[in-house]
Amino acid sequence: MNILIKDILAILPGEPDAEVKRTDVYVTDTEIAAIGTEPEGFVPDKTIDGDGRLLIPGLINAHTHSYMAFMRNVADDLSFMDWLFGRVDPIEQRMTDEDAYWGAGLAILEMMKSGTTCFNDMQMNIMQTTRAVKESGMRAVISRGLVGSGNDEAGRSRLEQAYAERDAFKDCDRISFRLGPHAPYTCDEAFLRIVAEEAKKNNIGIHMHLSESKTEIENCRRDYGCSPIELAERTGLFELPFIAAHCVQIDDKDMDILAKHNVSVVTNPASNMKLGNGFAPVPEMMAKGINVCLGTDGAASNNSLNLIHEMSLLTLIHKGIHLSPQCVSAQEAFKMATINGAKALSLDKVCGTIEAGKKADLVIMNLKRPSMWPNNNPVAALSYSANGTETDTVIINGQITMEGGRVLTMDEERIYYETEKIMDRIGK
Amino acid sequence: MNILIKDILAILPGEPDAEVKRTDVYVTDTEIAAIGTEPEGFVPDKTIDGDGRLLIPGLINAHTHSYMAFMRNVADDLSFMDWLFGRVDPIEQRMTDEDAYWGAGLAILEMMKSGTTCFNDMQMNIMQTTRAVKESGMRAVISRGLVGSGNDEAGRSRLEQAYAERDAFKDCDRISFRLGPHAPYTCDEAFLRIVAEEAKKNNIGIHMHLSESKTEIENCRRDYGCSPIELAERTGLFELPFIAAHCVQIDDKDMDILAKHNVSVVTNPASNMKLGNGFAPVPEMMAKGINVCLGTDGAASNNSLNLIHEMSLLTLIHKGIHLSPQCVSAQEAFKMATINGAKALSLDKVCGTIEAGKKADLVIMNLKRPSMWPNNNPVAALSYSANGTETDTVIINGQITMEGGRVLTMDEERIYYETEKIMDRIGK
Repeated sequence: MNILIKDILAILPGEPDAEVKRTDVYVTDTEIAAIGTEPEGFVPDKTIDGDGRLLIPGLINAHTHSYMAFMRNVADDLSFMDWLFGRVDPIEQRMTDEDAYWGAGLAILEMMKSGTTCFNDMQMNIMQTTRAVKESGMRAVISRGLVGSGNDEAGRSRLEQAYAERDAFKDCDRISFRLGPHAPYTCDEAFLRIVAEEAKKNNIGIHMHLSESKTEIENCRRDYGCSPIELAERTGLFELPFIAAHCVQIDDKDMDILAKHNVSVVTNPASNMKLGNGFAPVPEMMAKGINVCLGTDGAASNNSLNLIHEMSLLTLIHKGIHLSPQCVSAQEAFKMATINGAKALSLDKVCGTIEAGKKADLVIMNLKRPSMWPNNNPVAALSYSANGTETDTVIINGQITMEGGRVLTMDEERIYYETEKIMDRIGK
Repeated sequence: MNILIKDILAILPGEPDAEVKRTDVYVTDTEIAAIGTEPEGFVPDKTIDGDGRLLIPGLINAHTHSYMAFMRNVADDLSFMDWLFGRVDPIEQRMTDEDAYWGAGLAILEMMKSGTTCFNDMQMNIMQTTRAVKESGMRAVISRGLVGSGNDEAGRSRLEQAYAERDAFKDCDRISFRLGPHAPYTCDEAFLRIVAEEAKKNNIGIHMHLSESKTEIENCRRDYGCSPIELAERTGLFELPFIAAHCVQIDDKDMDILAKHNVSVVTNPASNMKLGNGFAPVPEMMAKGINVCLGTDGAASNNSLNLIHEMSLLTLIHKGIHLSPQCVSAQEAFKMATINGAKALSLDKVCGTIEAGKKADLVIMNLKRPSMWPNNNPVAALSYSANGTETDTVIINGQITMEGGRVLTMDEERIYYETEKIMDRIGK
């Protein structure tokens, strides 16, 4: 389908700052065909009026666990142990495959309605998320969660299963695959070496939790005599495209290692604060040239999957810590939530900016909302005043998945019905 | 008018925690007549169906500067001096009375749409905010901004003017009045003593910025040999009902003084971070028994007047600072955003909780939103997953001011039109 988005204020790529410009955007089939100049012979099947609206590249949530969405607000203001073993784990134990599907659906609904068009998911049960991603029209990286030890056959068989599952979504070009060795405290060094070896053979990227909490660092030093970052380096995992989620408790040496290997770091400010893990050294990582992008983490530890809310946290907290109003600007946050995420997911040729030749992953926001008005600076508005619900229309891979605030590809009422039923059954 | 809110999940007062209960709420004229049990002879003029909805007491924004709403996103990621003298001040200089009116209108629109029913405003030009408050149906404390020195006739004449202006809204029982000596760096000690003396004579409360930035503390110590809190104490101002905005850069001694005099502190996390001033020691103030409530500050330094967003910041940042997931709970944040604000504004007999005999300041939120679903814990949802736009219906002083997401008492389109025109004229 050909779509013309007419006379719209758009946030276009620029160096160093993104540029805000009124223009026309032409979409042909799955791609952005042109910006500003009508392509020869272009006949729109649909024209979207840009008046009073803002066009942004779809946001990229670079770390989440979508199936957890029905666990929103079930475990708050608790110690980490009570959170995990008292509330989250028991619910997970009772969860069925079908539950994971509806959880992923609720997560996608929330993300799409707040302007996210692509997410990087980590979990064991990837087939259900894959099903929800396919149906919803979302773009996703599915990271197959892995835990295990090198002496253990179970770990190896999980790895084999991961490859088998991967074949199931080879037919959908909106989905790509990573291996997700969970963390240094759930995968031993020998197992991490096996994962690295296998991933190299198959040329697959990695997505892993690293250096999230003080306890993790202490235990890693006790068990391996090094930091989690050093451990991951020596297993060979950093020789692959690598997404490190969290990196809260890291030092200068860790940052140098991350920079040296072009590791992308996903910062998850809400989750890191909410679980009492602290603040990732984002300005310090940026100064080292590390590619930092943004994630929400899962709904049991955030409890929102709204990346606009995360941008607000990202831009505010580091100013508070460094007593500097210039620390982590709105322009920087915008890149972290878009193109930096695309780079981390090896999708920067595909999405992350509004550019001719890229896939059409586009979000149209209403400006006529108190949160966006007057329209003094749209890039600043995204971080400092928007709440995400200004999202009106969403286009992913050239498909209109949401229009006038209504998601077209999913049955919203059914998702509410099913997820409520799930919590009635397994949440108590 | 009699309103019956039928079979609704409501957050009712409780000790120590607010209680969530499905009930019926009966409103007669301006007041909550009863909860759960129908008052004798009650005939509803209007019945609101509570299905899929949540009833909360209207939120109280205890510190803002409403007229600044059109300055949203005009001055971001700048040093304090560039922010104030480069951007905000020049726009203020060009502002007319009519501009202040439309600015206040936009602020009220944003607050009402995100569940706030009462705000505490500080500014010089109070007549325009008063006009917007009267028309919109909001509840407000209008704090008349004052700057001056003891040797200066201008300060005294402003004080006289303040009293004259006060008479203009004696006819509206939704508005109360405070004196707003701006800050220790804009009012000298002699002037603060005059304000204290006058306020005592007239039994008027005070609203003042105190201990916002490190520079303020340094200058106060240089000029007066004490902290801003100590200065305020020795002028006699703390003998009056006193709202201290910010209190970011305070020490243990300051906190003891605040506790001793029952000073209420308004914390404004977004503004304090955004301007690079830091984090107020909220858990420490709570431990001292200080009444802490919540504010957004003005739209030039936040840039949102959405108290739900502020609750999220309040509950998250202190967990990050103290590496404790139990620090500043959702229950505590709920109180700070409601009853603690009412106490600070001397309105705790009037609003801040859903109780029979109080004024009907009520907010009905939609639960069927991804941000609120499943409905596992409504109090946690307000801080950790809501974004404020779940607000569907607002009742203030028994009047329905918003219904089905539409504000009934204000012309939303006109406000957008006028505030855009203002920025076109004075914003460049």
